[in-house]
This record gives sequence, C-alpha cells and structure tokens, in this order.
Amino acid sequence: MSMKPRKKNIVVIGGGTGSYTVLSGLKKYPVNLTAIVSMADDGGSTRVLREEFGVLPPGSVRPAMVALSSQEETLAKLFSFRFSQGTLAGHNFGNLFLVALTKQLGSFEEAVERAAELLHLKGEVVPSTLQKVTLYAKLENNAVIKGEANIDVPKHNGNLRIKKVWLEPKAKANPRALKAIRQADLIVIGPGDLYTSIIPNFLVQGIGRAVEKSKAKKVYVCNIMTKFGETTGFCAKDFVDVLERYLGKDVFDYIVVNIKRPDSKRIKEYGHTRARFVEYSPEDSAKAHFSVLAGDFVRKAGFIRHDSDKLAKLLFSLVASKKQKGHPYAQCIRIPLE
Amino acid sequence: MSMKPRKKNIVVIGGGTGSYTVLSGLKKYPVNLTAIVSMADDGGSTRVLREEFGVLPPGSVRPAMVALSSQEETLAKLFSFRFSQGTLAGHNFGNLFLVALTKQLGSFEEAVERAAELLHLKGEVVPSTLQKVTLYAKLENNAVIKGEANIDVPKHNGNLRIKKVWLEPKAKANPRALKAIRQADLIVIGPGDLYTSIIPNFLVQGIGRAVEKSKAKKVYVCNIMTKFGETTGFCAKDFVDVLERYLGKDVFDYIVVNIKRPDSKRIKEYGHTRARFVEYSPEDSAKAHFSVLAGDFVRKAGFIRHDSDKLAKLLFSLVASKKQKGHPYAQCIRIPLE
Repeated sequence: MSMKPRKKNIVVIGGGTGSYTVLSGLKKYPVNLTAIVSMADDGGSTRVLREEFGVLPPGSVRPAMVALSSQEETLAKLFSFRFSQGTLAGHNFGNLFLVALTKQLGSFEEAVERAAELLHLKGEVVPSTLQKVTLYAKLENNAVIKGEANIDVPKHNGNLRIKKVWLEPKAKANPRALKAIRQADLIVIGPGDLYTSIIPNFLVQGIGRAVEKSKAKKVYVCNIMTKFGETTGFCAKDFVDVLERYLGKDVFDYIVVNIKRPDSKRIKEYGHTRARFVEYSPEDSAKAHFSVLAGDFVRKAGFIRHDSDKLAKLLFSLVASKKQKGHPYAQCIRIPLE
Repeated sequence: MSMKPRKKNIVVIGGGTGSYTVLSGLKKYPVNLTAIVSMADDGGSTRVLREEFGVLPPGSVRPAMVALSSQEETLAKLFSFRFSQGTLAGHNFGNLFLVALTKQLGSFEEAVERAAELLHLKGEVVPSTLQKVTLYAKLENNAVIKGEANIDVPKHNGNLRIKKVWLEPKAKANPRALKAIRQADLIVIGPGDLYTSIIPNFLVQGIGRAVEKSKAKKVYVCNIMTKFGETTGFCAKDFVDVLERYLGKDVFDYIVVNIKRPDSKRIKEYGHTRARFVEYSPEDSAKAHFSVLAGDFVRKAGFIRHDSDKLAKLLFSLVASKKQKGHPYAQCIRIPLE
C-alpha cells in the first residue's frame, strides 16, 4: 500500500501584486494555501470605501482572491474590473462586492469567506487583523507620514529613508492567521512593497512572534526592483536587514534573489518611477544564517516582476517530498554552495 | 411505458415587483419560464447608471433575476442589496454587477446571460428590446411627460388620466423575446404598473403582434390596488380596456381578478400613496370574450400584493396536464360560470 504524501501547508504573507504572483503560481501545485494579507491599505477605491462604510480595506484581500480563484472565470475577472466613469470611477468591482457582502452579512471576515466560496478559491485568504488600523511612518528627518497611500506614493521627498513604521491603534492578530502560521510547513514572505504591504503584517501583535516560533521553513522573496520613497537605493541585503528588524534576527531559512538583470530597455521604462534594479552580491550574505537561492526569476516581458511559474516551482521544491522534488534548485545557485 | 408530459412554456411579461411575484411562485413548478421585461425604466440607481455608462437599464432585469434564482442564495440576496451610504447610496448591488459585466463583456444581453448562469436561474430573463428607449406619456390635458420615473411618481397632477404612452426612439423587439412568445403555451401579463411596467413591453415593435398571433393561452393578472398618477380611480375593467388598446381586442383568454378586499386597516396604510382597492363587478365583463378568474389572491400580511403561491397555483393549472391539474379553480370563481 502506497501512501499519498500529506499536502503541505504553505502560508504566503504580504499583499498586493507580490502576493498575487506567488499565489497564482502556487495554486497549480498540490498544496494547502493560505494568504495572509495586510489590512493597512488606504488608497483609491479602498480609501473611499473605508471612509464611507467603515469597513476593513477590501482592496487588501481582492488581489489574493483573484489569484486563488479557480473555475469561476467570469466572477474572478469581474472582481478586478475597475469602473472608469461617473460616480463609480476608480472603484474595483471586487471592492464593491466585498462591501455589499460585509454590509449584508455584518462582518468583513464572513464576507471574505462567502466571496471565497463564490469564487471557488483554491486556498484561503486571511486578513492579518480584523481591527481597523492606520499605518504611520517616521522618516530619517523625523517627519511623520500618516496613511499607507501617502507612504506608498510619496508626496514628501522620496530620497529620505523610512526609520520606522507602526500601526495606530495597536491591533491584535486574526486568530486564523496565527493558526495558519503555526500549522505551516513553509512560510513565504514577499515579494511586495516592503513598508506598505509586507511589514504591516508584522506590526500586528502576534504575527511576527508566531512566524519566529513556527517550525515552518521561512523564505523571503526579495523584490526585483526598488520602490522610490520606500526602498530607494536598496540592495538585497537592505531588504533583509529591514525585515529582520521587525521579525527578529536569523528568522529566514532562505532568501530568494533574482540575479537576472532585465535588458536596459525594460529597465529604462521604469525611469519615471525612479525604481532601480535590486543588486545582490554574494559577499552581502557571507555570514548569514540563511541560504540564498539566486537565479533568473524575471518575467520574460511586460512589467519587471517575478515570473509566477518559476517562483512557484522553486517554492514548491522547498516542501516537496523527495519523489516530487525533481531538480529543486535546477535554475538556481544556492549560496553557500552545499 | 409512460411518457412524461412535455414541460410547458410560460412567458411572463411585465417588470418590477409584479413580475417578481409571478416568477417566484411559478419557479416552483415544472415549467420553462421566460420573463420578458420592460426596458423603459429610468429612475434612481438605474437613471444614474444609464446616464453614466450608457447601458440598458439594469434595474429592469434585476427583480426578475432575483425571483428566478435558485440555490445561489448569497448572490441573489446580494443582488437586491442597496447601498445606503456615501457616493454609492441608492445603488442596488445587482445593478452595479450588471453594469460591470456589461462593460467587461461588451453587451448588456451577454451580461444578463452570464449573470443568469452565476445566479443559477430557473428560467430566462429577456429584455423586450436591446435598444435604448425613453418612455413618454401624454396626459388628458395634452401635457407630455418624459421618462418612466416621472410618470411613475408624478410631479404633475396625478388625477389627470394618461391618454397615450410611447417610446422614443422607436425600438425593435429582441428576437429572443419574439421566439419565446411564439413558443409559449401560456403568456402571463401583469400584475404591475400599467403604463410604466406592462405597456412599455408592447410599445416595442413586434411584441404586441407576436402575443396576438401566439397560440398560447393569454392571461392578464389585474392589479389589486390602483396607482396614483397611472391608474387613479381604475376598476378592473379600466385596466383591461387600456391594455386592449395596445394589444388588440379580445386578446385575452383569462383575466385574473382579486375580489378579496383586505381589511380596512391595511388599506388605510396605503392612504398616503393615494392607492385604492381595484373594484370588480361581474357586469363589467358580461359581454367579454375572456373568462374571469375571480378569487382571493391577496397576501395575508404586509404590502397589499398578490400571494405568489396562490397566483402560481392558478396559473400553472391553466397549462397543467389533466393528471397534474388537481382542482384548477378550486379557490376561484370562473365567470362566466361553466
């Protein structure tokens, strides 16, 4: 009698398009997926809906839901649809859907669960907290910026480094997020906006400690490009250093780093955003306790983002049974070399 | 070998809560249901969406869709949900859903079909026309009123009778509506607002003639209460007379008339709307070519509307096979008595 290996539990922590990329790749594998997403978003449609309806930010869960949707094509596409005219302009349909469900069912959490059923999600989407929070940042000149959207698209001088971010009021972790982290075999953090998508999850009381204590393997997927105003001038080491300030030293088992520089034409197209390619040199992680998985993870065309299939293949190999494993780091240099 | 009788085709023509009542009752019976709905609505959320997005009126199909929905509880309830705050105030979620689908798929018709799939409808909802139309009314003082909503809730003196209604521009029938009418075994017209929900269907070129020519039995379900500004002071005969002006003489096989007067307390509650109980006296239909099915069709409580189960039982009996029939007019006086 051959026994099927237990499906491994993968928890993806982040938000926005970064989590979207990881989840849409991983959903093709036989794993139990949980997406834990930041609840600090407050820009655009989400800002209006938070203000007008007092709901948790629907835009925070929407991308993860679309990423995890399976057969329900129409509804999933509709979720991303953005009204461009009239009084509805700027609203994503998915946001309105979640607000209507929240108002009808009485809780955001229930709304997310019900929407998940309707979209036939291949995994769970779990808000990191169920409390309403605002993200704050203190810059190196001690100026305080209020609100995720104002940190995300800086109206201040984006060359100033962020010294610290925090949430107001203090918020407790969603118990379901803690449970998923405890039961995880692999925790994937990132990619995504460091201060506005990734770290807000760890500002919620309990999440960071649960990650630290979890027996799961922990991997950080470093961004391919910097983001002006958040990670201006960052190299891979800087990303990890900042994260370790919020998560504790030596938390990570692996860091995934892209070392394939997209051609200069594609990088030039990012000029106006002042985003730069994230550099990595092996010396940076010479004394680190984690392994660096360095390889080509860039999409062939379009936005300079991770290729979701390449990334998922690597991430799955970290939890796959020997039989499933194949060539785990086939396209990857593992540093230090084993 | 016993053969199952062919499922009968029932076409319900109207719009609004009247059609909602008929459809939610009939969907419990083994019949093929098609709801043909007026496309002249232009009030409230529908007005805004028509103006801002140039779509056909989503509010016209929404009640029929909700009435016909089956297992998809959450989505169907959500369809009726109305936002009450902020910039979205007044919009039914179902309307936004249909607009988003229309914009995404490129056509209102396709949007209605796709929404029907998502809601698992027990029947079809067919717009009477796919052209954008505006309803006009000429009053007995020759004043012309533009727009369904302005006729529906009169800003003019509601005691003035409506002489005539028409659509601008002239519109052709939706071929699917014509096909359903041709293939019908029973055509149910009404109940509903005479000039703003029922007749606009027959102002579309081809619908009236198709009804007249169809071999289906034709039944008109007369309203229980009058409506100020549309049918002020009408008795049952007046409803039929006006309809015959648009549909042709002797079109109907049956007229369903409620003869159970709700208690005076319930009627009093309608005082502010200036609605009155619709009177019927057998003399009115003495020389008519149709049978009058007169009985108690009023809901036990709440709004004075038809009881959907009582109505559906009667309507189904008109097409049921002898075996299914039971006591067709059990609770009904058929006039002339047979």
